[in-house]
Amino acid sequence: MTQSYSVAVIGLGSMGMGAALSCINAGLTTYGVDLNPVALEQLNKAGAAATGTDAKAYAADVDAVMLLVVNAKQVNTILFDLGLAAALKPGTAVMVSATISADDAKAIETKLNEHQLLMLDAPVSGGAAKAAAGEMTIMASGSEQAFAKLQPVLDATSAKTYNIGTEIGLGATVKIIHQLLAGVHIAAGAEAMAMAAKAGIPLDTMYDVVTNAAGNSWMFENRMKHVVNGDYTPTSMVDIFVKDMGLVADTAKSLNFPSPLASTAYNMYLNASNAGYGHQADAAVIKTFSGITLPGDEA
Amino acid sequence: MTQSYSVAVIGLGSMGMGAALSCINAGLTTYGVDLNPVALEQLNKAGAAATGTDAKAYAADVDAVMLLVVNAKQVNTILFDLGLAAALKPGTAVMVSATISADDAKAIETKLNEHQLLMLDAPVSGGAAKAAAGEMTIMASGSEQAFAKLQPVLDATSAKTYNIGTEIGLGATVKIIHQLLAGVHIAAGAEAMAMAAKAGIPLDTMYDVVTNAAGNSWMFENRMKHVVNGDYTPTSMVDIFVKDMGLVADTAKSLNFPSPLASTAYNMYLNASNAGYGHQADAAVIKTFSGITLPGDEA
Repeated sequence: MTQSYSVAVIGLGSMGMGAALSCINAGLTTYGVDLNPVALEQLNKAGAAATGTDAKAYAADVDAVMLLVVNAKQVNTILFDLGLAAALKPGTAVMVSATISADDAKAIETKLNEHQLLMLDAPVSGGAAKAAAGEMTIMASGSEQAFAKLQPVLDATSAKTYNIGTEIGLGATVKIIHQLLAGVHIAAGAEAMAMAAKAGIPLDTMYDVVTNAAGNSWMFENRMKHVVNGDYTPTSMVDIFVKDMGLVADTAKSLNFPSPLASTAYNMYLNASNAGYGHQADAAVIKTFSGITLPGDEA
Repeated sequence: MTQSYSVAVIGLGSMGMGAALSCINAGLTTYGVDLNPVALEQLNKAGAAATGTDAKAYAADVDAVMLLVVNAKQVNTILFDLGLAAALKPGTAVMVSATISADDAKAIETKLNEHQLLMLDAPVSGGAAKAAAGEMTIMASGSEQAFAKLQPVLDATSAKTYNIGTEIGLGATVKIIHQLLAGVHIAAGAEAMAMAAKAGIPLDTMYDVVTNAAGNSWMFENRMKHVVNGDYTPTSMVDIFVKDMGLVADTAKSLNFPSPLASTAYNMYLNASNAGYGHQADAAVIKTFSGITLPGDEA
């Protein structure tokens, strides 16, 4: 099945690069699209069929497109403003894996349908390491045909694909609720580590205790390592959670539903971004707590 | 070493029972104390040297006492009001494993010292299953002598003992900061699952997605199972987190430090308790979200 299957992966950031490499590893004919020449070069060396800055160049050749860009605006720009949707063969499957609102997902579906294209509303999770290993978690909704057409891509990139239902928007909502947890967990980790610093607890000890006890979370273990090491080089940055917690807030409003913890965490990320930490690792939300000395701070 | 080593475990709830069973399994001469005759009978059958409602009966025989009661008030009542401390041999080690404030821990130390008793400030984590397996996580502070005297008990009951330092109160503070995370994670899980219910996401699917993705936490995985199953039989109840998040608030105030997420979660538990869910499983904090139908609700 995979012999003649071609996919274009658009957006070669930490998740997209991993997904594209996984497609190559699975034997799919893989095209890579990004504006960053370093990423294109990396994918070329790994065995991409071709790479470039304009996805339309590969539109006639592909069975599927996987979009791993940052937000709905980028999805719309690539598909509609730059004309990719119009250039794709009818029946091509478009897997939208950016974290976007359910409303945006539905609007994109409507426009893709006008071009006889299949859509899978398919956000992802797992981090860069899992993406590179072909072990992302995919939370997807869409038609049976969309799932079927994308099966080789889902097999190549994910350890587990959840079929949430046929309605476009359900995948987006599950991802946003997932991000509520991810965002609260990072902010809670920062709050806890900041309080430990204030109390004179060695942060490496606090980290070890939590990661071996019931207070642990995936995000605490992954992100508070930045705090212990005093290294805020981003794999995912504060401004990503400003965006994602903003989507949580939009979703909560649209559902007319309270989100006390997510709202609080959103304010913490906003404050961190406004303090100048937007482009640092998301764990830098801890830097908004004053009156403490953290690893890496000037003595 | 363990042949002639005797320990009294006081408080045979879910953690204390597990710890006492682990002491028996490790070959320690183990006395069990509780007010609940069912727990005493269970420990007797498992091979306790003796069980009863008054710890003083075993005071002359034990090398160590492990207190796994609910709060500082109970610790003080047992040790000082009921006269256990006065009855223990000088040099006996008292391991205080209740979740209490650093100030309470220091006050207990002062009074134990008057009786020439060693204190280990040693809260625990891990849940009932880990306690029964002798695999609790212990976060301890105290003198070298206290650690040494309690080594057989620490070996019997824990997979990992952290030595936070010599100062009594550090163990208590680490546990309280750990509970900040545990309490926020349960409340965040409830907020996320409630929002999923409102959005029409099947909760078993939402649970599966999160537990296989980066939004997972130990508490989400353990406690949101109650929500999916519609079963709020408590292993740990809402009122425990009313108490523990109250300790977080006290600690934050004493450190003059903000705790935006912990404060929000504390209010959620208070509200749940006042709504009548105090003695249900802590996941019942989700029941304070209105306008949704949860598994187990009347159709």
